[in-house]
Amino acid sequence: MPGEPRLSTSLSFLAPLQDDIRAVEGMMLAQMEGHHADLRNALDLILKSGGKRIRTSLTLLSGRTFGADPQRLKTLAAAIELLHTATLVHDDLIDGSLLRRGLPTLNSQWSPGATVLTGDFLFARAAVLAADTESIPVIRQFAHVLGVIVNGEITQLFASRCKASRDDYYERIYAKTASLFETSTWSAAVIGGAEAPAVEAMRNYGYQVGMAFQIIDDILDFTSDAAQMGKPVGSDLRQGLVTLPCLYYLEDHTADPDVQPLFQGRCLSDEQLSRVVASIRESHAIERSYQEAERFVHLGLESLRSVPPSPERSALEELADYIVARKL
Amino acid sequence: MPGEPRLSTSLSFLAPLQDDIRAVEGMMLAQMEGHHADLRNALDLILKSGGKRIRTSLTLLSGRTFGADPQRLKTLAAAIELLHTATLVHDDLIDGSLLRRGLPTLNSQWSPGATVLTGDFLFARAAVLAADTESIPVIRQFAHVLGVIVNGEITQLFASRCKASRDDYYERIYAKTASLFETSTWSAAVIGGAEAPAVEAMRNYGYQVGMAFQIIDDILDFTSDAAQMGKPVGSDLRQGLVTLPCLYYLEDHTADPDVQPLFQGRCLSDEQLSRVVASIRESHAIERSYQEAERFVHLGLESLRSVPPSPERSALEELADYIVARKL
Repeated sequence: MPGEPRLSTSLSFLAPLQDDIRAVEGMMLAQMEGHHADLRNALDLILKSGGKRIRTSLTLLSGRTFGADPQRLKTLAAAIELLHTATLVHDDLIDGSLLRRGLPTLNSQWSPGATVLTGDFLFARAAVLAADTESIPVIRQFAHVLGVIVNGEITQLFASRCKASRDDYYERIYAKTASLFETSTWSAAVIGGAEAPAVEAMRNYGYQVGMAFQIIDDILDFTSDAAQMGKPVGSDLRQGLVTLPCLYYLEDHTADPDVQPLFQGRCLSDEQLSRVVASIRESHAIERSYQEAERFVHLGLESLRSVPPSPERSALEELADYIVARKL
Repeated sequence: MPGEPRLSTSLSFLAPLQDDIRAVEGMMLAQMEGHHADLRNALDLILKSGGKRIRTSLTLLSGRTFGADPQRLKTLAAAIELLHTATLVHDDLIDGSLLRRGLPTLNSQWSPGATVLTGDFLFARAAVLAADTESIPVIRQFAHVLGVIVNGEITQLFASRCKASRDDYYERIYAKTASLFETSTWSAAVIGGAEAPAVEAMRNYGYQVGMAFQIIDDILDFTSDAAQMGKPVGSDLRQGLVTLPCLYYLEDHTADPDVQPLFQGRCLSDEQLSRVVASIRESHAIERSYQEAERFVHLGLESLRSVPPSPERSALEELADYIVARKL
């Protein structure tokens, strides 16, 4: 699999972003210049493995809504995408993942030390780009959200294994995804000089859409086939992560003998796992999870309606709808 | 061993900094509040393992020289010390070190994943503190120097093993130590609103003192006993790192059969290592290395003389002299 295509090449409402997205990728790569050659190769590999550049799209569209300076906006987008990339590099190392989106992870080719340091270097250069926005509130939020993301991962590592809790789940997907989505839309509005209520509306749009995005990811972990995802079906649950489809399934199937350990915070056996993953795929829990994602998107769209209509606002609306409809 | 004492409790010229250093440590710990409890425990452990707080002392004294706002200055010092701490956490993981200054490393007690994430969290909170200085040039330099440090580690990992090169050595100790020393003194002068020539003089003072500090560290790696250092004598060379005492030894002993592999960029056998470490300890290379450190300190002091005399400037002079005289 050659990595997934950028959204902008497949979704017509993102076509106007194509050039800027390419420019943002160029800014990311430029951060590697003048440093150890393998760093550029590493980032090249990571960028080629695709990623939908959804954070970049959100940032660019949100900023353009308020007429943000294009150069600062692209710098912000590159900072956010590079921060996201850095967290993925360390994530893959910690999970021992050898594939991401069907392509080899850095972790599968490099020593742990080199992988840790590459992630660190990406953090460093993301911070340089953030500083280049020259907005103290944006820089502060940037540093803050990195703490939120990492704290979420630490909590997941120490405390969330095989624990079936809605509160924990929402906290986790906020830390993992929605926090950086809201940082993207909020920061872009700040760079664009939007008024406080509009900045808050954009933050909330990013938050809601981010929550929905992660729920859909967690649904696809059950419903996609392994080849599409580049990882086994039900991989979250196999790693002891109880996501929304499983939480709904537990609500509706309290008597299923296979899920009993989860009610006591214990992990499932391999046989139980296979049966439960298959049961969840067939169950109403998938539909309920979609409805929950739609509820978040609906709240995001409601927020968005408070900013004046524009082609960019329309594209953000379509992007929100796409997020629930996507199959990958 | 209870960890080394802070400099400020043993050196009279640093006595006026005691309260501020304690406040800086408090600010570092406060960065852990409201996050996963183990993070605070981890930082507690790291802070207890001591460290000389030499970067904190440099920052506070440099800023005070120019009447910097005490709160912003302490924030800067905490940012720098926390950044330094974060790099140590990842270093120990990459080296597999189980002890630092005679106390267990985080790495020896936590899983690799937890250690990576703790380092990441420290980076994040260091960045928050840097943002709190509200100086864009300082924030930018802060991000920049993290890239320099990490790039140096990557170069060391990929390219410096058993390579005897003066240029590589100076590049490496700049990245490892002098870059953050110069960031400390430079940033403090910027926060203090110093004029450009004074800012440059302070940067150069930090640079020179940082180079000297690392050279002394590299000497002590040969001359201290293992119990004092909390690691084996000659540990750098054992890891394939050719430092200044070894470089001088190679210059003076081209015919020593034990060092021949190093002339071809190959590593030494265990027997060769033991003999070479003993030979270096006894050789004139140690004295020559001290002279080189003194040369750096001398240049630093020369730079410092361009700023007006003050009790803080005097303390910075004494600090520079202490750096060459220290035995630990």
